[in-house]
Amino acid sequence: MKVVVQIDALEPLVARALVVAGASNANARIIARVVAAAERDGCHSHGVLRMPGFVTALRSGWLNGRATPSVRETAAGTISVDAGNGFAQVALEAGRGRLMEMARQNGIAAMAIHNGHHFAALWPDVEPFAEAGFVAIGCVSSRRRIAPWGAKRKVFGTNPMAFACPRAGRPPFVWDQASSVMSQGEMLIAQREGRRLPQGVGIDAQGQPTTSPEAILGAGAFLPFGTHKGSAVAAMVEILAAAVGGAEFGFEDRSAGNPGATTSRSGQFLLLIDPSRFAGPQFAERLELLFAELADAGVDRLPGDRRLEARRRAGRDGIEVEKADYDRLVDLAGASAGSKP
Amino acid sequence: MKVVVQIDALEPLVARALVVAGASNANARIIARVVAAAERDGCHSHGVLRMPGFVTALRSGWLNGRATPSVRETAAGTISVDAGNGFAQVALEAGRGRLMEMARQNGIAAMAIHNGHHFAALWPDVEPFAEAGFVAIGCVSSRRRIAPWGAKRKVFGTNPMAFACPRAGRPPFVWDQASSVMSQGEMLIAQREGRRLPQGVGIDAQGQPTTSPEAILGAGAFLPFGTHKGSAVAAMVEILAAAVGGAEFGFEDRSAGNPGATTSRSGQFLLLIDPSRFAGPQFAERLELLFAELADAGVDRLPGDRRLEARRRAGRDGIEVEKADYDRLVDLAGASAGSKP
Repeated sequence: MKVVVQIDALEPLVARALVVAGASNANARIIARVVAAAERDGCHSHGVLRMPGFVTALRSGWLNGRATPSVRETAAGTISVDAGNGFAQVALEAGRGRLMEMARQNGIAAMAIHNGHHFAALWPDVEPFAEAGFVAIGCVSSRRRIAPWGAKRKVFGTNPMAFACPRAGRPPFVWDQASSVMSQGEMLIAQREGRRLPQGVGIDAQGQPTTSPEAILGAGAFLPFGTHKGSAVAAMVEILAAAVGGAEFGFEDRSAGNPGATTSRSGQFLLLIDPSRFAGPQFAERLELLFAELADAGVDRLPGDRRLEARRRAGRDGIEVEKADYDRLVDLAGASAGSKP
Repeated sequence: MKVVVQIDALEPLVARALVVAGASNANARIIARVVAAAERDGCHSHGVLRMPGFVTALRSGWLNGRATPSVRETAAGTISVDAGNGFAQVALEAGRGRLMEMARQNGIAAMAIHNGHHFAALWPDVEPFAEAGFVAIGCVSSRRRIAPWGAKRKVFGTNPMAFACPRAGRPPFVWDQASSVMSQGEMLIAQREGRRLPQGVGIDAQGQPTTSPEAILGAGAFLPFGTHKGSAVAAMVEILAAAVGGAEFGFEDRSAGNPGATTSRSGQFLLLIDPSRFAGPQFAERLELLFAELADAGVDRLPGDRRLEARRRAGRDGIEVEKADYDRLVDLAGASAGSKP
């Protein structure tokens, strides 16, 4: 069963639930924006479904919802942000203005965030940079989930990577993908719905193939997409997000020993390129030739198209939220149970 | 049958063959270094096997072996190089000193090369940057070969991407992978040896699955690694190497109408990150914790390990080159047929 809600109503409700759980108003607003955007864009695995996880992490004291990030400009093109054990998105927000100025000035700039918690979708972090004219790449480390190619157990996080670039007269081209065959969000939904998973997405605690989401999400491991090649991408993400940024590796995560630690203290790496510094201002127009060629070759859906369609629908008809998730959100926000969206 | 040759003998022989075909001495030396390095490291698909392709491209006038690259510093962190229809590696060499200075100064820098021909392995381009302490990412576009996920025909080049980062007291960690399930080099070798390919690596001219290297290398297409996720990586490579850099897209390649055009006029994007600007000087030491964890989890071979083993063997015993390839190289170099390595 679904509840239809407008984004202008959903965002404050999410923010309220985070404030009730201990976040500051300013921090809660930033997280509410990405959670509501995920729900609006049909990314239910990263939307309201995650709220109990956020709330538990905040209430337990594992995640500091009142953290003030510390931003250091370490060179003309690099920023290092200590998220202060708070939300990674708050750290990003604290540095993003200067990061864009640096990228405009130098043609390229990067920011690394450590000591932060990234429990939401990654595409909301990079899409706004592409709307501002930049090519953006982002990656995030997190607690270990993926068995590297050739390994018997998990070492890497789900290690998502996202890419965004401007398009001429259209919303940016954006993709966001975990380094596993299947994302953790998809597995959580399968688990909730009692479904088995396809072959080839994970192994159990003994390193054997399994289709049980419980076994994979438990002591087992996710398998990387594209066998050894996806594993190499996962390694790159782990190195950029954790090693370069000075954050914890996925295998160093200590959340298991902390009741309520539903999120990981991890790293994020963000890279901005000003494409006009190379090919010149005609970049986006030329890029349309590639998209036209893709359409001509039979590609009827680009990565991100599904999100944009859901976004248009939501703008017209409102956002459909699972009633159970919505009711729980209302509870978490301390609103009266009978309140209408 | 194999011929054993030392790298000090192989490099000048390759250079000589390129000069005979029309390259300048300086340009030939740069290409000879990467071709000999590929052979030394056991990457036979990108070694001496490619020499007839280089020579044909030079002789036909398609590739200008005497080109002088034109290097423009377009911002404090960006370099745009016009390879002058010559070798991409010569353009890289022309800009690499300044690129490293920029990355040291700003923490990050990028270079895009257009109007160049990249017909060799990509890892030799990024590995030296990691030896100098940088994290390096490189990608190259080329004539269309890969059918994007959902497409009926080829649009993307093989679109390799390479990653390199320094290690503590060891050679850098380096990977280099095509965005296809199987590399063009592997297919060329299978074709030469008359072998069929595994299922799932390509489609024929009608868009149907096939195991024939001829059908795939001909009017068919390679399939991307990791289904839609590898296809997204291929799209990123095409955008960075061709669109950002202002180079031709793979589908714009006009080599088919030019006899002897064995190479593609394409783009290359290179990115350097100074990891000490984020996590500080302990980056490489911390990274060893990740490699130790990988070993403990059962990973007995990292990407690049096979190359390093071949390199050690070659340093001790010399380089084993296929006799047919070697004899042809000797012919191309105009050396007497009876000359000994």
